[in-house]
Amino acid sequence: MTGEFLTSLTPEHKKFLVNLFKDGVSFDPKVLRVYASDASLLTGTVLAMVRPESAGQLCEFMRWADAEHVAVHPRGRGTSLSGGCVPTVPGIVVSMLGMDKIIEINKEDFVAVVEPGVNTALLQAECEKLGMFYPPDPASGKATSVGGNVITCAGGLRAVKYGVTRDYVLGLEAVLPGGELVKFGGRSHKDVIGLDLGRLFVGSEGTLGIVTRLILKLLPRPEASASVLVGYPSLDAALASMGKVFAAGILPCAVEFMNETVLEILARTGDVPWPDSVKSLLLFQVDGSKETVPLENARLANQLDDALWRMEGVGKQEEDKLWAYRRRVSAASYVLGPDRIGGDMAVPRGSILKAVRKFEEIAASNGKRLIAFGHAGDGNIHANLHYDASDADDARRTQKTHHELDAAALECGGSLSGEHGGGCLKEVGKQLGQKEHALMLRVRRVFDPSGILNPGKGY
Amino acid sequence: MTGEFLTSLTPEHKKFLVNLFKDGVSFDPKVLRVYASDASLLTGTVLAMVRPESAGQLCEFMRWADAEHVAVHPRGRGTSLSGGCVPTVPGIVVSMLGMDKIIEINKEDFVAVVEPGVNTALLQAECEKLGMFYPPDPASGKATSVGGNVITCAGGLRAVKYGVTRDYVLGLEAVLPGGELVKFGGRSHKDVIGLDLGRLFVGSEGTLGIVTRLILKLLPRPEASASVLVGYPSLDAALASMGKVFAAGILPCAVEFMNETVLEILARTGDVPWPDSVKSLLLFQVDGSKETVPLENARLANQLDDALWRMEGVGKQEEDKLWAYRRRVSAASYVLGPDRIGGDMAVPRGSILKAVRKFEEIAASNGKRLIAFGHAGDGNIHANLHYDASDADDARRTQKTHHELDAAALECGGSLSGEHGGGCLKEVGKQLGQKEHALMLRVRRVFDPSGILNPGKGY
Ligand SMILES: Cc1cc2nc3c(=O)[nH]c(=O)nc-3n(C[C@H](O)[C@H](O)[C@H](O)COP(=O)(O)OP(=O)(O)OC[C@H]3O[C@@H](n4cnc5c(N)ncnc54)[C@H](O)[C@@H]3O)c2cc1C
Ligand SMILES: Cc1cc2nc3c(=O)[nH]c(=O)nc-3n(C[C@H](O)[C@H](O)[C@H](O)COP(=O)(O)OP(=O)(O)OC[C@H]3O[C@@H](n4cnc5c(N)ncnc54)[C@H](O)[C@@H]3O)c2cc1C
Repeated sequence: MTGEFLTSLTPEHKKFLVNLFKDGVSFDPKVLRVYASDASLLTGTVLAMVRPESAGQLCEFMRWADAEHVAVHPRGRGTSLSGGCVPTVPGIVVSMLGMDKIIEINKEDFVAVVEPGVNTALLQAECEKLGMFYPPDPASGKATSVGGNVITCAGGLRAVKYGVTRDYVLGLEAVLPGGELVKFGGRSHKDVIGLDLGRLFVGSEGTLGIVTRLILKLLPRPEASASVLVGYPSLDAALASMGKVFAAGILPCAVEFMNETVLEILARTGDVPWPDSVKSLLLFQVDGSKETVPLENARLANQLDDALWRMEGVGKQEEDKLWAYRRRVSAASYVLGPDRIGGDMAVPRGSILKAVRKFEEIAASNGKRLIAFGHAGDGNIHANLHYDASDADDARRTQKTHHELDAAALECGGSLSGEHGGGCLKEVGKQLGQKEHALMLRVRRVFDPSGILNPGKGY
Repeated sequence: MTGEFLTSLTPEHKKFLVNLFKDGVSFDPKVLRVYASDASLLTGTVLAMVRPESAGQLCEFMRWADAEHVAVHPRGRGTSLSGGCVPTVPGIVVSMLGMDKIIEINKEDFVAVVEPGVNTALLQAECEKLGMFYPPDPASGKATSVGGNVITCAGGLRAVKYGVTRDYVLGLEAVLPGGELVKFGGRSHKDVIGLDLGRLFVGSEGTLGIVTRLILKLLPRPEASASVLVGYPSLDAALASMGKVFAAGILPCAVEFMNETVLEILARTGDVPWPDSVKSLLLFQVDGSKETVPLENARLANQLDDALWRMEGVGKQEEDKLWAYRRRVSAASYVLGPDRIGGDMAVPRGSILKAVRKFEEIAASNGKRLIAFGHAGDGNIHANLHYDASDADDARRTQKTHHELDAAALECGGSLSGEHGGGCLKEVGKQLGQKEHALMLRVRRVFDPSGILNPGKGY
């Protein structure tokens, strides 16, 4: 029963939704246009936008949606880069931003209990005020919801040392298609009773249920941190240097890299402090106590003797200056063309150099430049291509390049996505085995027998 | 289709097994007796023991087992304390110790590829030789298999800082009932394509499939470590002290606790260095580089000003002396009775004191002593009761106490098990909601439609 979905709403449908959601529903085309898209810039068809304020309300909605067989597209802050929120099948968008409360941050248990709509940066800041630390840190954290982070298993800058969002989810509540509210896990840091279905929601891309509450694990807040931006004559030299750091037993929180094209666009769009001889950058961060950070920093510096150039920053303010170069990359890339196709392939850590070199070759052979940067410590490469959509030949070559990059990532033993997810953009069938994919779909049907939840997305 | 299973093997069945496994099969009652039990000391009925040496062999066996409807009980090193390996339904035990190779430890990718039967301590040692670190560290690690650790999501001593086994599983291969070999994940440190069914195996207690290969994430090896054993006048004082350590932003690798009864049995069974006024102990470990560990140690020491007594150890040899007291606990407990019922409840970290005090009261009201120790940093309490099974009244009171402890753990918002699993011992229905439990069973049936795998165990 995953056949035809409703393609328009009758007056009765609308009446039901208005009764249930009052102000929290919209049929206004201008409003719906916003909810038709996300950061992928793809668009779909929105029949209505609803914004529940309680799990109870959502249960009632999901019971109705299942009975009426209308497609349901959950949405956090809509920063998905893989079209995870785009209603490729016409349907109702459920915005979770009406449920954005921090219910509790507990200093004894080291847990936070939140509604999914809470902003990631806000949660981080509130935890830090209390001497605690919520490590997952997607580069988009100022804009994202924690619910969206959980449902995509967001990675981020500190994943090398602290892992990804999955590692901080202790428990969750979700509403399933059909309207059942289920609860998994709890506030104990360990719990191995039963099958771990709560964590199966992490990275499920909105295909199992709509998360309404999260219990998150917190750590003590590290007192201090330091960063160093390091310039090399080549990407080869940069990545060899990273290898030496890990081999020396150092575990930085973050290791970011940038290829030559990235350095070029940064220089074209603003001042840069490194000399021309620098063709690749690494950006490291270490953290710890006030006493240990200078020592960790010195240990790190010792391993970076192949560097041509470096710039150090101790403490948030100084570090921010270094990280500003990294943060400028996305915006600066547009000098290479007004339109973008992004990649976030992950490869085994030891294969990054091979993968980026191969990607660059593929791009060049199609007459394209490759913007490559990202989370080198995780083998997670942001491989972006810019083009001009009004130039049909450019668009065609860019698409071709993009597909060839995906294939090359898989050839390196990697994944099509390290953190953005399959969404409606990635050809997941190229990566997943047939048997394995079939199992995933059968498990999906256990949660969503009629297939109303985020159809056309994920896997 | 989860009805009657085979209760004996015909000559044809035996012929099939001998043909398939050659020397790797046994019907000898003396051998089978070993495989009828595990560290829980419960026993079941074994029809045969088979020891596959390849995934192909196991596929053929699982196809046959499904067709014949014989129950299959996977087994690693049999150290389960919850009866996870006990054939409560008569069946064939599949020992995975025939597949115990370390296939690869890769210094560039920071991954280990292993067969499930490999011994945990051996893998740790081999990684350390190469400057790498496999953190999951169950106290039983010298005896366990990595496959058993994965399937139980083993915790352990270093979980406070490094997390549990789940956090180190990047990919796996498993054979499903029916004989299909499936592969999930890979050697990239990040991968969010598809539903995360690979990690669903972690903690699945052998109910989804038999794992035949694992890809594990490694970290750089910390250069140095230090431990401190700290004595307090009461458990209250000890746990208040732990709270101060976390509040000061310190993240130790390990924080173990012991209650008054534990100190008493340690004193009764050997020399102890602490004065009589010490009624509770904490054992901390910190790690890092040679330069940072002394500083971390000093920071930690500053927070322990409520301590009556302390003993420090820097470096493995000195630390081992301190950890020896912790390791002696299990054996020493037998002075309180030749038989044991163990608990490994987990509670929110801030509720440990309340939980242990409540457990002690419950024990006292039943005329029993409570041995309480374990992973305080994770809220994971080993709550053991000793008794004499030949004394019917003692046995009854002990059982009663055990059930009351479980109920008290749940009342504290905790879990019946922080690391040992439900096995065939825990009343998981008391913890899991009905709807949630039903979903777990439906997902189990996706992997194992005929229910031949570890029936009667898990959830
Ligand atoms: C500039 C930029 C930088 C980025 N950097 C990173 C990065 O470093 N790391 C990273 O991982 N990602 C990154 N992203 C991608 C994106 O920000 C993440 O995927 C983020 O986790 C999405 O959060 P969101 O609240 O916007 O979720 P949305 O985009 O709204 O939703 C994401 C998915 O989750 C589902 N969903 C949302 N809320 C719920 C819910 N409550 N219940 C069920 N399903 C739900 C949606 O259906 C969708 O499939 C970046 C994006 C941008 C634009
Ligand atoms: C003294 C002592 C101390 C302990 N301390 C700890 C501790 O600190 N932390 C902790 O977590 N545990 C601890 N345990 C419990 C136990 O050691 C762990 O559960 C361990 O992970 C089991 O490993 P094993 O190889 O013995 O697995 P087994 O006991 O053989 O099996 C455990 C479960 O896994 C299944 N299984 C095993 N291999 C496979 C496979 N390849 N595929 C599918 N299913 C499989 C079995 O069916 C069973 O359900 C302790 C036990 C003892 C006796």
